[in-house]
Parts: sequence; structure tokens; C-alpha cells
Amino acid sequence: MMMNKETMKTTCINLLGARGVLPADIAELVFELQKKYVADLTMKTCDDAVDRVLSKREVHYAILTGVELDMLAEKKGLSEPLQSLIESDAPLYGIDEILALSICNVYGSIGLTNFGYVDKIKPGIVGKLDRMGKETAHCHTFLDDIVGAIAAAAASSVAHNNAL
Amino acid sequence: MMMNKETMKTTCINLLGARGVLPADIAELVFELQKKYVADLTMKTCDDAVDRVLSKREVHYAILTGVELDMLAEKKGLSEPLQSLIESDAPLYGIDEILALSICNVYGSIGLTNFGYVDKIKPGIVGKLDRMGKETAHCHTFLDDIVGAIAAAAASSVAHNNAL
Amino acid sequence: MMMNKETMKTTCINLLGARGVLPADIAELVFELQKKYVADLTMKTCDDAVDRVLSKREVHYAILTGVELDMLAEKKGLSEPLQSLIESDAPLYGIDEILALSICNVYGSIGLTNFGYVDKIKPGIVGKLDRMGKETAHCHTFLDDIVGAIAAAAASSVAHNNAL
Amino acid sequence: MMMNKETMKTTCINLLGARGVLPADIAELVFELQKKYVADLTMKTCDDAVDRVLSKREVHYAILTGVELDMLAEKKGLSEPLQSLIESDAPLYGIDEILALSICNVYGSIGLTNFGYVDKIKPGIVGKLDRMGKETAHCHTFLDDIVGAIAAAAASSVAHNNAL
Repeated sequence: MMMNKETMKTTCINLLGARGVLPADIAELVFELQKKYVADLTMKTCDDAVDRVLSKREVHYAILTGVELDMLAEKKGLSEPLQSLIESDAPLYGIDEILALSICNVYGSIGLTNFGYVDKIKPGIVGKLDRMGKETAHCHTFLDDIVGAIAAAAASSVAHNNAL
Repeated sequence: MMMNKETMKTTCINLLGARGVLPADIAELVFELQKKYVADLTMKTCDDAVDRVLSKREVHYAILTGVELDMLAEKKGLSEPLQSLIESDAPLYGIDEILALSICNVYGSIGLTNFGYVDKIKPGIVGKLDRMGKETAHCHTFLDDIVGAIAAAAASSVAHNNAL
Repeated sequence: MMMNKETMKTTCINLLGARGVLPADIAELVFELQKKYVADLTMKTCDDAVDRVLSKREVHYAILTGVELDMLAEKKGLSEPLQSLIESDAPLYGIDEILALSICNVYGSIGLTNFGYVDKIKPGIVGKLDRMGKETAHCHTFLDDIVGAIAAAAASSVAHNNAL
Repeated sequence: MMMNKETMKTTCINLLGARGVLPADIAELVFELQKKYVADLTMKTCDDAVDRVLSKREVHYAILTGVELDMLAEKKGLSEPLQSLIESDAPLYGIDEILALSICNVYGSIGLTNFGYVDKIKPGIVGKLDRMGKETAHCHTFLDDIVGAIAAAAASSVAHNNAL
């Protein structure tokens, strides 16, 4: 079942929605990250930047792969020791950060800093996903990093568009 | 089920073996990659370098994650469109290269060149895995890249040890 | 002296030209890399892909930085031990590959494989730069990797455009 | 002038010292980053981790290259537009983050998060370097990222050693 890029985008947005993440939640992170650098930043600008990131093929593949691993872990569908590593969000696992890095680099290396900051501070939707992952049966090992990375890439895109 | 590093290493070597890859197969790639740079290169040196790479935690996690995705694809155990992307080794998918990159960088960026070369030329075990993936019901979308990356990292390790 | 993106692009193309590299030389590499995957590939398609890569800000910065270091090494303008490392194209130095990686990832991780292949095989202009770097007073430690990376990224762009 | 690895390490530590950064300053960052994860963390553990990072060849090359570019920018020794980009620490430049990334990955991808956090919050020596870079004739475009990356990599090393 091969999909064209537009159908793939819709599939990914629906998948994020089913996991509790709306594009508007990510746009709020972008606003927080960029408001001190862009004088007259609007939510529309942030929404558009998130939409641009969500249109990129490499972002689709990272979302599909990471969220699948989270869902398989919730269903105890992975082999050991991978099941335990992902289910427990083991701090040294690192494959979640590697997938996220492939997203946050789509608008150049400046996405990196914002990603690390969001991952550490866990504002807005990222904090909510992190708490749900820790306190409920949900597994968000990949999802919180993916969301942080989309926000970081979108913030880079805003910064690039705002430059000369 | 958390494992210590030594048990994890054994688990990964066994998993590679179950998928048809022995450390000695990878050491042969390393020999081919390095023989023209190191005058008196021995197979022992290559075996040891592969063993060092297979001792690294970030390598364990990439092996466990990539091989799991290959095996799930063989069992039709993934959601669409991810199932089709991995099963068909879709050329733009790229998450296999991203995982592999995390392996081939464990001894610095010079692993990159060897990885790209192996991935394109497909010598020895990498070619065998690639053909099996294409002609049989096996899925080696991640495995061939992982094996190439372990060889590339081990070749870097040989080069580093051979320097001043 | 801040430049807008269009002026920056012209500056980078002129700088590559002054170092002996024309966009058409890079397009030839792209043609070689992609001809077996794209049935009716034309040079126009390859020229356009190189032009797209040369329009990207992160590519401009990598070109400006890498070529500057090459030129400073030619003039013995760097401190030791950096001068010797760059002048001799020391095999473990690796910062040239790191800069190149930032270019070859602008159209996703599939650029990686092509970059490694070009770096090893050294076809066309890359081989010419490599020989000049070794046999004359020219220093091309960064330039040959940069050119290979631009070709690899442009090949990825062709592959992406040729997909659904 | 080729140096062995031990002499190279001394050269890099002296170079950082000449630019105002002591290993102990970096160890303090490591302590801040890791104290909430490691119950009985000592400064000795942090000092040792910084020393391990400063022993790695890929770290030496990133330090030598980045600090050289900072020093050349201070002396107006770079061509335009690179001189202005580095001198002004242009926010989209990004080559400083790319060099830093090669450092913070030496102990796996978990270094990434700490790097981004340090780069945004600018604690201790990183904040001091940043202010000096902005308020005086010093150029620290590369140095502050390099120092943050060494701290992030050392924090990863502490985390790895503290695991099973």
C-alpha cells in the first residue's frame, strides 16, 4: 500500500491526533520558543510553520516508525529486552532522540538547541505526554521526542523565514 | 526485564546469528575496507574491532530496534503504511540509514564514508542479505544497513588504533 | 556585512568557481548517481537539482566555512597542529566529513549513502580535486567533501521529486 | 607537525585555558546537569568524565577547528561574508552547532538533550563566555557551543557509567 505525499501527511496528522496531539498544540510550543526573537509573532505564523514541517516526507517516516513502536510497547507486542527498554523509557535508550534528530534537522542545525531545551523543560503538550507516559498505561517514549522535534523544526523555519 | 551490558551484548550477537549474520562475516567486510590502508592487517585485528563495536550500548539499541522492525514486517505485524514501506525497502524511507548512522559514528565521522560505500557496493554478507531480502520472504530493510554500519565503525576503530 | 539569501548564493557559486568547481561539474556527478534509478533522466533535471541545493542557507554556510579553511591552509594561515592536519588531509581529522554531512542531509538521510560512495570512488570533479590536492600546492581537504555532498543531496532531491 | 594523542590532548586543554575555560569550569556544568539523577554524585566523578571526553580525538579536532575560527574572527582574518557571520554570532549560521554535535555524540545520542538545554539556559562558564562574546572584542561563537557540548558528553558518560 504505497501512498502519495498528501495522503501520507493526512495519515500522520490523524495518527498524531489519535495519540492526543493536535497541530495547534505543537504550534503553541513554537510560539513559546520564538516569541522573544520575533517581535510581532502570530499564532498563524506558528500554525503555518508546523504545517510545513508536517508536509515533509522524512518527518512522516519518523512519525510512523516512532508511534508504531510506542503502540506496540503498549500492547506488549515487542520482544525482550526491547519491550522493557521502550515501555520504561530507559534513559540511555537514545533511539527516540535519534529519530527526533532526523526531524529537527529538516530546517538546519539550529533546530537542535530548541529540541534539547523542550526535551528538558517539557512545556505544554510535551509535559502532558511525558506525565501520561509515566502515570498511565500509555507509552510515549517516542511521541514526546517527536512532538518536541516538530516544534523545534517549526521554530527554525520561523527563524529562517524571518531572516533576510 | 533490564539486562546488564554484558548480557545485552550476548543477546545482540545471538539475535544477529538468528538472522544469519556472524561477527566473522562482519570482520571480513572490515578486512576488505582496511587492507589497503594497513600494511600488515590481520583477521584477528578485524575480529577484535568488530567485538569492540558490538560491546557498545548505542549499538545494542540500534540492533534490537532495527531487527525487531524487520521481524515484525516479516510477520505482517506493522500498521499500514509502515508495513509496506519496510516490507518493500522503500528507497526514500531512510529511517534504516538514520539508525545505521548512530552506529557508524561511534568511532567518529570517518565511519560515514565506509558506510556509504558498503551500502552502495554491497560486498560479502551485505550483498547476501540484500538479495535474500529481495528474493525471499525475509525482510532485511534494517539488517543490511546495521551490518554495514558495524563494519564501517569497526574499520574506523582499526584506523584510530593504527594512528599515533 | 550581512547578505540576503540570493546574494549569498551568487557569492557561493563564485567561490566554488574560483576553486575550480562549476555547478555543471556537480550535475554530472548527480547524473552518474541517478541514471540507473530514473529511466529518462536528463542533464536539465540534474542541473535544477544542484541549483536547488545551492539555494539553501545551510549549504552556503558549509561552503563558506570549509573553503575558507582550505584557503587559509594554502596560505599557511592556520595555527599548528590544525595547519598540518588540514594541509595533509589527515585521514582521522573528520571535520570535513561533518561539514559535508550537514549538506548531504538537506533532502533527508538517503543522501548519506551517495556521499560515502562518491567519497570512496572519487568520480569526475571529485577525483580531479583530490589529485590536485595531493599533487599540487592546492588544499582541497574540505572542498572535495563539499562537492561530493552537494552531488549527494542533489541526487536525493531528484529521487524525492521522482517519487509519488 | 603531527602530534600523538597525548600531546594533542595537552594542546587542546592549554588552548581552552588560553581562551578562559578550565576543565573544572566544565565539570561544574556536568555536576549541575547530573546531580538530580545520580544520588551521591561527586565533583571527582565529574572531573573524570570531562577528562575522558577531552581524551577523544574527535573532540580535539572540533576544539582546534572551532577555536581557530573564533580567533581568526577576532583578528578580522576571515573573508567576507564569513567574517561577519562568525563575528556577529549570526543566529542561523549553525556550523558552530554542527561541530558541537560531533562532540556531544561521543557517548551516544543522549548528549543531545543536555547540549540543547545548556545552549539555551547558558549556565556558569557558558553564560560568561556568551556575555564576553557579546560585550567585548572577544569572539566566542564556536567556544560556547564547544564547552556546552563537552559538558553534555561528559554528563552522558556519567549516566552510562552509572547504569548497569
